[in-house]
Amino acid sequence: MNSIKLNDISLQLCKPSAVNALYHKSDQALPSLDILHKIISLLKSVIFPGYFGNENLSPDTLHYHMTAHLDNVHQLLTSQLIAGLCFDCKKSRCLGCEKEGREAANQFMLNLPELRDMLSGDVLAAYEGDPAAKSPGETIFCYPSITAMFHHRIAHAIYKLDMPLIPRIIAEMSHSSTGIDIHPGAQIGKNFFIDHGTGVVIGETCIIGNGCRIYQGVTLGALSFPKNENGTLIKGVPRHPILEDNVIVYAGATILGRVTIGSGAVIGGNVWITNNVSPGARIAQEHNANN
Amino acid sequence: MNSIKLNDISLQLCKPSAVNALYHKSDQALPSLDILHKIISLLKSVIFPGYFGNENLSPDTLHYHMTAHLDNVHQLLTSQLIAGLCFDCKKSRCLGCEKEGREAANQFMLNLPELRDMLSGDVLAAYEGDPAAKSPGETIFCYPSITAMFHHRIAHAIYKLDMPLIPRIIAEMSHSSTGIDIHPGAQIGKNFFIDHGTGVVIGETCIIGNGCRIYQGVTLGALSFPKNENGTLIKGVPRHPILEDNVIVYAGATILGRVTIGSGAVIGGNVWITNNVSPGARIAQEHNANN
Amino acid sequence: MNSIKLNDISLQLCKPSAVNALYHKSDQALPSLDILHKIISLLKSVIFPGYFGNENLSPDTLHYHMTAHLDNVHQLLTSQLIAGLCFDCKKSRCLGCEKEGREAANQFMLNLPELRDMLSGDVLAAYEGDPAAKSPGETIFCYPSITAMFHHRIAHAIYKLDMPLIPRIIAEMSHSSTGIDIHPGAQIGKNFFIDHGTGVVIGETCIIGNGCRIYQGVTLGALSFPKNENGTLIKGVPRHPILEDNVIVYAGATILGRVTIGSGAVIGGNVWITNNVSPGARIAQEHNANN
Amino acid sequence: MNSIKLNDISLQLCKPSAVNALYHKSDQALPSLDILHKIISLLKSVIFPGYFGNENLSPDTLHYHMTAHLDNVHQLLTSQLIAGLCFDCKKSRCLGCEKEGREAANQFMLNLPELRDMLSGDVLAAYEGDPAAKSPGETIFCYPSITAMFHHRIAHAIYKLDMPLIPRIIAEMSHSSTGIDIHPGAQIGKNFFIDHGTGVVIGETCIIGNGCRIYQGVTLGALSFPKNENGTLIKGVPRHPILEDNVIVYAGATILGRVTIGSGAVIGGNVWITNNVSPGARIAQEHNANN
Amino acid sequence: MNSIKLNDISLQLCKPSAVNALYHKSDQALPSLDILHKIISLLKSVIFPGYFGNENLSPDTLHYHMTAHLDNVHQLLTSQLIAGLCFDCKKSRCLGCEKEGREAANQFMLNLPELRDMLSGDVLAAYEGDPAAKSPGETIFCYPSITAMFHHRIAHAIYKLDMPLIPRIIAEMSHSSTGIDIHPGAQIGKNFFIDHGTGVVIGETCIIGNGCRIYQGVTLGALSFPKNENGTLIKGVPRHPILEDNVIVYAGATILGRVTIGSGAVIGGNVWITNNVSPGARIAQEHNANN
Amino acid sequence: MNSIKLNDISLQLCKPSAVNALYHKSDQALPSLDILHKIISLLKSVIFPGYFGNENLSPDTLHYHMTAHLDNVHQLLTSQLIAGLCFDCKKSRCLGCEKEGREAANQFMLNLPELRDMLSGDVLAAYEGDPAAKSPGETIFCYPSITAMFHHRIAHAIYKLDMPLIPRIIAEMSHSSTGIDIHPGAQIGKNFFIDHGTGVVIGETCIIGNGCRIYQGVTLGALSFPKNENGTLIKGVPRHPILEDNVIVYAGATILGRVTIGSGAVIGGNVWITNNVSPGARIAQEHNANN
Repeated sequence: MNSIKLNDISLQLCKPSAVNALYHKSDQALPSLDILHKIISLLKSVIFPGYFGNENLSPDTLHYHMTAHLDNVHQLLTSQLIAGLCFDCKKSRCLGCEKEGREAANQFMLNLPELRDMLSGDVLAAYEGDPAAKSPGETIFCYPSITAMFHHRIAHAIYKLDMPLIPRIIAEMSHSSTGIDIHPGAQIGKNFFIDHGTGVVIGETCIIGNGCRIYQGVTLGALSFPKNENGTLIKGVPRHPILEDNVIVYAGATILGRVTIGSGAVIGGNVWITNNVSPGARIAQEHNANN
Repeated sequence: MNSIKLNDISLQLCKPSAVNALYHKSDQALPSLDILHKIISLLKSVIFPGYFGNENLSPDTLHYHMTAHLDNVHQLLTSQLIAGLCFDCKKSRCLGCEKEGREAANQFMLNLPELRDMLSGDVLAAYEGDPAAKSPGETIFCYPSITAMFHHRIAHAIYKLDMPLIPRIIAEMSHSSTGIDIHPGAQIGKNFFIDHGTGVVIGETCIIGNGCRIYQGVTLGALSFPKNENGTLIKGVPRHPILEDNVIVYAGATILGRVTIGSGAVIGGNVWITNNVSPGARIAQEHNANN
Repeated sequence: MNSIKLNDISLQLCKPSAVNALYHKSDQALPSLDILHKIISLLKSVIFPGYFGNENLSPDTLHYHMTAHLDNVHQLLTSQLIAGLCFDCKKSRCLGCEKEGREAANQFMLNLPELRDMLSGDVLAAYEGDPAAKSPGETIFCYPSITAMFHHRIAHAIYKLDMPLIPRIIAEMSHSSTGIDIHPGAQIGKNFFIDHGTGVVIGETCIIGNGCRIYQGVTLGALSFPKNENGTLIKGVPRHPILEDNVIVYAGATILGRVTIGSGAVIGGNVWITNNVSPGARIAQEHNANN
Repeated sequence: MNSIKLNDISLQLCKPSAVNALYHKSDQALPSLDILHKIISLLKSVIFPGYFGNENLSPDTLHYHMTAHLDNVHQLLTSQLIAGLCFDCKKSRCLGCEKEGREAANQFMLNLPELRDMLSGDVLAAYEGDPAAKSPGETIFCYPSITAMFHHRIAHAIYKLDMPLIPRIIAEMSHSSTGIDIHPGAQIGKNFFIDHGTGVVIGETCIIGNGCRIYQGVTLGALSFPKNENGTLIKGVPRHPILEDNVIVYAGATILGRVTIGSGAVIGGNVWITNNVSPGARIAQEHNANN
Repeated sequence: MNSIKLNDISLQLCKPSAVNALYHKSDQALPSLDILHKIISLLKSVIFPGYFGNENLSPDTLHYHMTAHLDNVHQLLTSQLIAGLCFDCKKSRCLGCEKEGREAANQFMLNLPELRDMLSGDVLAAYEGDPAAKSPGETIFCYPSITAMFHHRIAHAIYKLDMPLIPRIIAEMSHSSTGIDIHPGAQIGKNFFIDHGTGVVIGETCIIGNGCRIYQGVTLGALSFPKNENGTLIKGVPRHPILEDNVIVYAGATILGRVTIGSGAVIGGNVWITNNVSPGARIAQEHNANN
Repeated sequence: MNSIKLNDISLQLCKPSAVNALYHKSDQALPSLDILHKIISLLKSVIFPGYFGNENLSPDTLHYHMTAHLDNVHQLLTSQLIAGLCFDCKKSRCLGCEKEGREAANQFMLNLPELRDMLSGDVLAAYEGDPAAKSPGETIFCYPSITAMFHHRIAHAIYKLDMPLIPRIIAEMSHSSTGIDIHPGAQIGKNFFIDHGTGVVIGETCIIGNGCRIYQGVTLGALSFPKNENGTLIKGVPRHPILEDNVIVYAGATILGRVTIGSGAVIGGNVWITNNVSPGARIAQEHNANN
């Protein structure tokens, strides 16, 4: 059946020149998507007890399930943070990465109560922001906004601990499932709600205040990437918008560059913004007027 | 290894004040995503026999497989509709929810032949609407439009029976997989086709006629949510567009509010509409002319 | 419990008139999504060794794993290409389809080294195009652009061998997971990068040069579908844009019809283009200036 | 890490001389343990409805589930019988095996009602034979005797159709799970019960009447295997015991050769028998008397 | 392909007369083997922490994992005990069974510490009884004796609470995997060890003292089942052997009837015993002497 | 629902005194049954190519699949041998165990060709020894004798490398599935066949020559375990039988102690042997004669 020479094809594919860029040589374990999914799933049981995992939690035993889940998260996350650090260093038996990853995992655990408060606000925002929602529980159970913010608040907490790769993988899990692309670096205040959500992009250096709400297809992006004299992209420079408190951005609007949208401003659908907007302003597509 | 005190974190997470909003206390079973996926999968075998499930159906045995699948759907759906009703009522051994869910499941089964006729029209519309489609079967097998309409027509049939939660979960399954977000309340006529689809949003009170076609990124949304004197959102008020028969809406167009797009009208890409459009009209971006 | 007559419903659903359009009668195996997922997964191990599949590949044994994976891909793909051909022909024991599918699978294997070179360029483009990427490996591991191009380059290679259905299914796998919809027919040059990506649509007859970059929500579509005198859509006519080398298209831009965007041109966000654009031109939304 | 030369080992293992006896070269599919387990599982739902598979069968829908299961069994079993026939013939595209396997599968289906009657008797025998059994249902649910007889009656029905390999595989499934080793060729009458069962061996040419009962560790074996003039074993010659109706054989007894144990005889524990036993006789270990 | 009439076969199989004995009609859930396996698996984590389930238990978090596991066991076991009670009663919404099952599950939980002490002794007995065992841990990890006693001590604890069916199913799980068949009713003292084990049978009314040891193929059975005047088997009558403390029974020995084997007695291999044996006696096969 | 205090039970179960013997504290990974099953499954593909794993092996690609499997086996086995060594040492980051395990895994790989030759002989012996076997392939596919010898020859090869725990676990896998209990230490010559097999026990220091055959329920055991002056069992002392070449032992026979069964001897069923047997002798139950 193999009239073709698979071996020849294989030799071509294995030539050092061909293989170089795309071959990961390391005896350190790679981060594992399966374990990261398990961590996310355990954290859902921790943050939203009774909705996910064991459904029959009684107040008597809640504390024990919670601590057991935390222990599992802690161990698994430690291994993944180390794997993320080793992904690039590629050294063998990397004790430096191990210490660093272990400390970051510890710190992440300490941040969980705060992370949960933030998500509590997001659930409230989703419930109040969508006239179709019948209870906060419904938004926990099936709203893309909660899925996106749950992943983002975890990814952001890990990002702030200077851990590589893992925050991005967690963000892409949510991106793939919701169509909402939030960079782990984005700073998002309390009570944030994204309605519908598909196509939303929120960039790395965005700062979003409390009580903001955005709709599908909104981009909070960069106008251009600053480069140094060698033409290399400079990382970390603030280049995405700032939204002050209670800003609303309707579907398809695009806000680019380090501009500030003042508190309470409302940006209309499909509008294109590259300058600051005053607090309380209402910006709409110009040609709407006579449409 | 646990130099950090996981127990302290757990105690913080379990404090009644912290846990309140995000803790689901009930001994009623929650709706189950796994069972809902199984229901959807069984319904695919019922609606598109030979494409999904047992592939070697002969005309002799089709009827038996069909009835067996219907029995399984009926039992599983009954349990999920009851779980959806109990999700909010939170009463124990809730006989009211049980009776209501059981009757709704019965009614849903009776609606299946009509639901199938509608989907038959959607398959035809997809086949005729896409020059790349080689057979209706191809659209059944892999077109996002068929995935979206399959879920929507099921979700809408359940929505009309006043069942909570379950229609929304079914709609979000499809939203997550196709990027097409159709509210279960939307009324959609025969032979509907969505090309590409990612980013489409169709609101709760939309009414769409027969033979319509829309493209990726189209929003059929609300201009604003009406509130009552207390500032609370009023639900169920008609606030989304009406599309009469044979309307085409090209990619990225936004139609907002309770406006009527007349029969046979064509709305150009990226156009922003908040007023009625006459039958047969062709609306395009103004600034295209001299582009 | 079954006070309703499931059998009656089943009889309605099985009526030949009702069942006709939606019933696939054939004793040939249908293409299998499970096997296609397995093929994609094996090809990931072939193209990106060490990132997927067995993680501990040493240079000593790489060649053997590679050849074994290729043999598995070859056998599985052969079966799927035949199933795709038989999907429409519906003849029993179809030797014609078997021969055709077998030859196409052979040819696909021979194209793998070239396909890998192309993907190597796409990885480089992703790494260089995103200031947040810390290593090419990171883009292989979790960037939607690489997921989309990996599926597309495979689907396109199969499409060029005139195989039906399978390329489309592979494209939809990626569409569902990334929100990026690239028709398998699209011809895309080296070093292509799609940032964020959700909502991107690239049509069947697109031709894209080397070094191009596009952002989320970009449509490279057709203005209209040409019909013959009978009003039937004519397939295969060039109707989508040509992008020459090094073109950049920012988020939400729409380019429609068989227009040519000249080498090095930059198309601004949300711009609507239906005419040719000169090499090196910069096109931006007009009303941005005074926004 | 691979200081050892795996390739050298592989070359040794692949030498034609080494590989010959243990290498199965054929492009016909092998019988599949997974599919055979599925067949057994479907047959459990057919024979013991309500105990296995869908538990909520109502008399209204029983018939439909039954027929759908039968159709699935029929298709899967056909494929496995053909695979069993091809296992030795090793011809490619073997139409002879296909026809033969298909006819045998048809015949097996026709034998199912009789097979079920036999199992109904075995369930009764288990219930009446074990003072601990509270209901016939309990024996269906968890008695090794029923597991063993369920597999045997299926394996024997296939064995009588001259199908190779598959009956043996089905027998070994049961042997592995119960420790009861019944050759598919053994002819066993109605209402048979095996108590405890581990270590029971029943040979190929055994004939067992109605209403017999045996205990753990009983061997119904051959004294020696007859050989022809070339010293080759002659197959199919009657060489195992005949048990007439209502015989009881207690634990650890061994009965060897083509002897007849007369109707109603009782063979004591650990007894060794190589001669005929008269009807109604009670045989016990001689040295028990004064033990 | 279906030249045979599957429907006719199905009708035969569904005839009320045919179906009667083998058809379980009930809308109560049956006991679930999957859930019982899960309960066993959770109990392994509870009884042997660090060997099964989460392997990285620290003394700090042990208590939380333990309590969480106990809560899961408690809920799952409650459901299974109720299902076991309903298996025969077949009443709908059976509140009596529910109350009874719930109380028995509570009581079982209270017995766990004692059950664990017993198993601790069995582990020690296995370690000391087998010269090949290198550590107690090794016996926990892979000795059939521990598997058998783990299941038996659980099954016996449930049996003592008068729960039907479930103890037998748990016993058969172990029987199938180890070839050791211990009736849940058997009373077994501390530090019990079964070497090799295949073929061992221990009857319902056996009473075994502390420190006993038995080998493969040993039967502790009944001579005959007492019947009442109607010829019906009388249940629960003591009819199996009593082994006092520190008795050893070598491979293949058979002890039948309500006899007492005195403390410290040693029963030789393959010996057949139907009378009492004095304390300290050594019984061997008579014909061994001059063998 | 939890009127019982699970927490109190948990505290009892966690008391250091209670937990001591049964709690495995170590941060080294335990051996994994899942990985050991995977190793066994890969080795089946290596030893019996075409029967297990990829069924469509061509002579062209056999070598590549073989080497890839060997590489996977090598890596997985290395990890398991290290885990087995660390199981008792319980030291953290145990470099000694790592080196030792790695070397043993290397050596095991080198022994594979010889191991395969032995299994080739066992297949032949099974085929020739069972008149029912139609081809050697059938014995590979479903005979318990081959399953038992496959596991034993692997376990024995690892045992000879002084690796703890892992050989025993592999032996118990086979014991559980076949009812044949062969200690990994037993030395078994070429062309060994076990018919039926349930209940067979072969002790640690047995030496079995070439061409032997044994039946179900045969014990090759020790008369007693030698102890040193402290009463502790002495390990490794030869205490099990020696079978010279071509010995046959019929069902249920028991041979105990360091006796030698001479070449070509035949031991009858249920016979009890504790002395040497001369070459060519035929030993049968004495009381058979006049039975």
